[in-house]
Amino acid sequence: VTDAPTILVVNCNTDAAMTERIAEIARGAASAHATIVGVTPQWGPSSAEGYLESYATAVASIDAVAGYTGGFDAVIMAGYGEHGREGMRQLVEQPVVDITEASALLACLLGHRFGVVTTLSSAVAGIEDSLRNAGVFDRCAAVVASDVAVSHIGDDDDATARALESAARTALSAGADVIVLGCAGFAGLDRRLEAALGVPVLDSVACAVQLAESLVNLGKQTSKAGPFAAPDSRKPWVGPRLGAPHRVR
Amino acid sequence: VTDAPTILVVNCNTDAAMTERIAEIARGAASAHATIVGVTPQWGPSSAEGYLESYATAVASIDAVAGYTGGFDAVIMAGYGEHGREGMRQLVEQPVVDITEASALLACLLGHRFGVVTTLSSAVAGIEDSLRNAGVFDRCAAVVASDVAVSHIGDDDDATARALESAARTALSAGADVIVLGCAGFAGLDRRLEAALGVPVLDSVACAVQLAESLVNLGKQTSKAGPFAAPDSRKPWVGPRLGAPHRVR
Amino acid sequence: VTDAPTILVVNCNTDAAMTERIAEIARGAASAHATIVGVTPQWGPSSAEGYLESYATAVASIDAVAGYTGGFDAVIMAGYGEHGREGMRQLVEQPVVDITEASALLACLLGHRFGVVTTLSSAVAGIEDSLRNAGVFDRCAAVVASDVAVSHIGDDDDATARALESAARTALSAGADVIVLGCAGFAGLDRRLEAALGVPVLDSVACAVQLAESLVNLGKQTSKAGPFAAPDSRKPWVGPRLGAPHRVR
Amino acid sequence: VTDAPTILVVNCNTDAAMTERIAEIARGAASAHATIVGVTPQWGPSSAEGYLESYATAVASIDAVAGYTGGFDAVIMAGYGEHGREGMRQLVEQPVVDITEASALLACLLGHRFGVVTTLSSAVAGIEDSLRNAGVFDRCAAVVASDVAVSHIGDDDDATARALESAARTALSAGADVIVLGCAGFAGLDRRLEAALGVPVLDSVACAVQLAESLVNLGKQTSKAGPFAAPDSRKPWVGPRLGAPHRVR
Amino acid sequence: VTDAPTILVVNCNTDAAMTERIAEIARGAASAHATIVGVTPQWGPSSAEGYLESYATAVASIDAVAGYTGGFDAVIMAGYGEHGREGMRQLVEQPVVDITEASALLACLLGHRFGVVTTLSSAVAGIEDSLRNAGVFDRCAAVVASDVAVSHIGDDDDATARALESAARTALSAGADVIVLGCAGFAGLDRRLEAALGVPVLDSVACAVQLAESLVNLGKQTSKAGPFAAPDSRKPWVGPRLGAPHRVR
Amino acid sequence: VTDAPTILVVNCNTDAAMTERIAEIARGAASAHATIVGVTPQWGPSSAEGYLESYATAVASIDAVAGYTGGFDAVIMAGYGEHGREGMRQLVEQPVVDITEASALLACLLGHRFGVVTTLSSAVAGIEDSLRNAGVFDRCAAVVASDVAVSHIGDDDDATARALESAARTALSAGADVIVLGCAGFAGLDRRLEAALGVPVLDSVACAVQLAESLVNLGKQTSKAGPFAAPDSRKPWVGPRLGAPHRVR
Repeated sequence: VTDAPTILVVNCNTDAAMTERIAEIARGAASAHATIVGVTPQWGPSSAEGYLESYATAVASIDAVAGYTGGFDAVIMAGYGEHGREGMRQLVEQPVVDITEASALLACLLGHRFGVVTTLSSAVAGIEDSLRNAGVFDRCAAVVASDVAVSHIGDDDDATARALESAARTALSAGADVIVLGCAGFAGLDRRLEAALGVPVLDSVACAVQLAESLVNLGKQTSKAGPFAAPDSRKPWVGPRLGAPHRVR
Repeated sequence: VTDAPTILVVNCNTDAAMTERIAEIARGAASAHATIVGVTPQWGPSSAEGYLESYATAVASIDAVAGYTGGFDAVIMAGYGEHGREGMRQLVEQPVVDITEASALLACLLGHRFGVVTTLSSAVAGIEDSLRNAGVFDRCAAVVASDVAVSHIGDDDDATARALESAARTALSAGADVIVLGCAGFAGLDRRLEAALGVPVLDSVACAVQLAESLVNLGKQTSKAGPFAAPDSRKPWVGPRLGAPHRVR
Repeated sequence: VTDAPTILVVNCNTDAAMTERIAEIARGAASAHATIVGVTPQWGPSSAEGYLESYATAVASIDAVAGYTGGFDAVIMAGYGEHGREGMRQLVEQPVVDITEASALLACLLGHRFGVVTTLSSAVAGIEDSLRNAGVFDRCAAVVASDVAVSHIGDDDDATARALESAARTALSAGADVIVLGCAGFAGLDRRLEAALGVPVLDSVACAVQLAESLVNLGKQTSKAGPFAAPDSRKPWVGPRLGAPHRVR
Repeated sequence: VTDAPTILVVNCNTDAAMTERIAEIARGAASAHATIVGVTPQWGPSSAEGYLESYATAVASIDAVAGYTGGFDAVIMAGYGEHGREGMRQLVEQPVVDITEASALLACLLGHRFGVVTTLSSAVAGIEDSLRNAGVFDRCAAVVASDVAVSHIGDDDDATARALESAARTALSAGADVIVLGCAGFAGLDRRLEAALGVPVLDSVACAVQLAESLVNLGKQTSKAGPFAAPDSRKPWVGPRLGAPHRVR
Repeated sequence: VTDAPTILVVNCNTDAAMTERIAEIARGAASAHATIVGVTPQWGPSSAEGYLESYATAVASIDAVAGYTGGFDAVIMAGYGEHGREGMRQLVEQPVVDITEASALLACLLGHRFGVVTTLSSAVAGIEDSLRNAGVFDRCAAVVASDVAVSHIGDDDDATARALESAARTALSAGADVIVLGCAGFAGLDRRLEAALGVPVLDSVACAVQLAESLVNLGKQTSKAGPFAAPDSRKPWVGPRLGAPHRVR
Repeated sequence: VTDAPTILVVNCNTDAAMTERIAEIARGAASAHATIVGVTPQWGPSSAEGYLESYATAVASIDAVAGYTGGFDAVIMAGYGEHGREGMRQLVEQPVVDITEASALLACLLGHRFGVVTTLSSAVAGIEDSLRNAGVFDRCAAVVASDVAVSHIGDDDDATARALESAARTALSAGADVIVLGCAGFAGLDRRLEAALGVPVLDSVACAVQLAESLVNLGKQTSKAGPFAAPDSRKPWVGPRLGAPHRVR
């Protein structure tokens, strides 16, 4: 157990400014002795809002962590509903916390059913798959699109907040009593939405930071006894190899 | 958000020595600035290993918190697989973390499927119900009894550890790659079992402490917009009233 | 097999007048040679419409039966959607019939999907949990609140009947073709609602009486080979012990 | 509500001697004032142990009831796991009780999980379908074949009882704490098996009689508001029409 | 593997003109070297729109194939949502393709969720059962009745198309992105609906022809290692025997 | 509808010799007028047997098709259990047939439950996810590893066949009556295994060819009305863009 953990926060897309915003949110949620390192994939889309882009971000994110040469204690995957979680767990021995899974898990502790408000409708099916594979979809009342594209989140904060509030009210009508902000880019809007709605609203990046620190505090690593065992490092690859497992420092 | 949170750790049974052992484990897992207060129910069984005893502990635990006169920031329910979680969430505005739910949630971040090793076979059905109602049963490979009664846990540490290891191996054979210790009284045996098995082994009390602190750090409260809204405080009761909701300090 | 069975009908709350009304309904549904004994818990809420109150009624109901000194042949738990069913099955050797489970089972024989009309929205989640744990939730089209509190059921029979009819029509629109009255206090309104709706409407107390007599007629007892085995009677308790099992007379 | 109900017990196969044995069992389980009428299909297999034979028995059973000219108050379908239940519910207005569904429902009241012991392995898949469509498969721990063909049940009572006991022990090992005899022809062996196993053993015909009388006592009919509405009686048929609905006398 | 397969297309009802229309559609979908033989049951309803009629068509269809004296390479069951699939698979060794299952399977390859538009609301529950037993109901967004009775399909093609389009739009709103025409009699309307809706619309008979030819091309037969093994041919029957298994030519 | 379709068969790994073997199997299964074009990803692992490698193959496969400059009528994804299916469906307008989904669908037509025999145990969890997301996992009795690595399949045909037979027998014991060969590299072993086991054994590549030709024959395209709509082609990418949708020729 380390006293001063380093946590990689991997943005899923290639927008470095967004990485920095996410890292700032993460720093605000982290304990004083933790170091947050933002990581931006070297290739891929500027935002991901559907299956095809999501597969690209999965591999680009794994690639980015595989190529990271510093030490670290946990990895946060900061793409809501994006693929790659299980592959990253094969890559590293440290804990891997997906913001999708993290926010759903904490939401389960605060209410009866949670609702997710996300960006475009093209992202909804992939989010539902991710929650189902995470085993927590039974507690999800609805995943609702706000029709705010990732690339337009910062254009007009009031308009974004209104769109999220409207989507959240749809989720509450469907039975939710807790709301999860289903995009890393929505970070910072949780307080405003919470005040408007009167229910807990969770920022998924902040949730992931808490859970990553929790696992570091407990001294736990990713299990290598099942499907997250490291892949065979001797297997030939064409092009850059993913998967030479990182040792825990 | 408080800087020095007080967390109530409610043992489910009337064995005050066990409360103290659980509180010690919780203190070991808590951050330096947190205060852990052990709470023992005033009535009920000395241990709970089945439905009937579990219902009693649910009400006795709620009763104990309802009667607690100090301030606090979160409640940990330290009875693995015991009833009462949803009722406690009606009682208080602070976050309520059940060790059953907490350890399952963190196990989901570390492996593909988790297994639970518990005390007697009479406890298994209730644990399965609790995980199902928590919405995380799909990720559970097996709940396995070790045939160590709660009252005999401390009798012979080596025998207890051997029984848990044997039960854990059964769970691994059923597909688990992470093990949860399914009794608050097993606290402290996680490291030994982890060394023997080579997979992550989670102490459920330590998990709950981490998640309770996480929710306090995030400044979140239990949702009152759904079924966890406080009951009507004007409703007549015969005998001691449960349910005058605690205000957040 | 007895020719003149005695059936305990345990109201879940402390309202003795309601116990008497429920017992009268039960007598109307029972065979001529059966004796119905109404039982009122000694403590707890005057009505139960949510998790917290429900846990209290579970233990108070078990307590009331544990303290009953006469002989009996079956126990009916007359709180719709209330906890305790599995604990009562540990307490006694006689059959235990929960009105929630009983009415759902008979509804399954009469239609394709049943709908439940209940009191307040705060009761819905617990009813859904109860039906899910009973294994019959797949056949339930909807649980709909009528917004009639238990304490106001008798205030205005016409208003209550209209509220139930409206809730029932919502359930029919959701796919139900049979309606279950989801509160013991609604007893007696089934005929009126049946006439208005043209579908079978089941009184849950009457259903439970029929099933309790059925099990007595068949000479069957609660299984003690699984989780409903009696708890260890030597285990220390603080306060009144629940769980010294009743012998079948 | 009639005081002296007539209940049709429809054997699924063309073996009139078996019809008579089943009717005798039904008479033993019925109340004194009830009349049990055994009905044998006019065509079809001498026993049904798989999908193909089961579809034939479905239509032959419906045919037999459609052609029955007397009055009656309820129909029992006495083929365990056989098709036809939903069609019979369209045919008549009276309650229709399938022995598969009836015994599963009562088993749910007596234990945590039930097991079914049946005839040949060819019957298992259809039984599982029937329980799944009835919505009670979640409570079923296992369906186990005894390898006793329907046509050989009476050959050697001791051998049959031993085979059932062995199959039941397999079901208990799979988590059952109640056993259902999954063939109408096993009627009468429940007491012997119950004594051997120490768990409740349910005769499915006796269960159905109790539930049929329960529904008659409650004055309930099959819902015609959903998929069990009578088919259009003006629709042309080639050959004997099924489906001119029986009026309730 | 045959080069010139003969495929039986079994209409579920006794309307020979409909059989001919279905066979024509099948011929249009079949490869040049295939022979399509329309088969009409000898008895039963002129159309099937609910459980009772569906059971009749199941047995009449099996009867028709059992009595067919020519050689054939595959059987298509051309009643959407009708019973009998599993029984037909016991009867013959050749592949059996149900249009319900076939169209659902191909729909799964073209979109995320499929919707079914069918005839009357009385048919919906049986269709849902069929998809559930086929294991593909999770991919079905909705089954929607168009209120066009089978017997009126050809009355007014424009009115039928409008009714189907309206029902399909309801299914799309429920999340479908592919539409299945849920009645053999709707054959030929897929192109028109596809043009109107802009999503793939599948004719279930054409789908079944493709899959039947696929299985013939692959040289595969129905498995006889499980519940589709032929029934015991020595078992006595009253009336015409179903089930003397057809040999593959 | 084209008379001479071109079908891309995309190997998931970078082993060009395996691509050629798979293409040969595909040609053997295709109709005479079809053209099979083998496609090998330009980068990625030489074989994929777990999550991390699977994500890489998903993107490399999409990349390979995105860069393919010829015309084509359908895409076959020839990696059993590998990711990418949903992303490829966004990329192209033509039908996309995954060998995992294709073989499961045809298996559903031939038996009651199918079993999958695959390579290493590291691949099992991903295969189960793929079948679950495809909506056909309910029909799967078991996924069994043969412990034959992809890279060793051709080393010793007899040893491979024996290992597959042993794994298949495990699947049959778990309730399967049809076997699917769960690796594209197993192509050609289906006949041998079928002879040994006496149950249908499906080669997944051959199944996919049949279904791809079926969809081409029916003139159907991937639905663009839901989550498989093409991604926004104006979105900035760093590195090679995936996702400029292919037009149907």
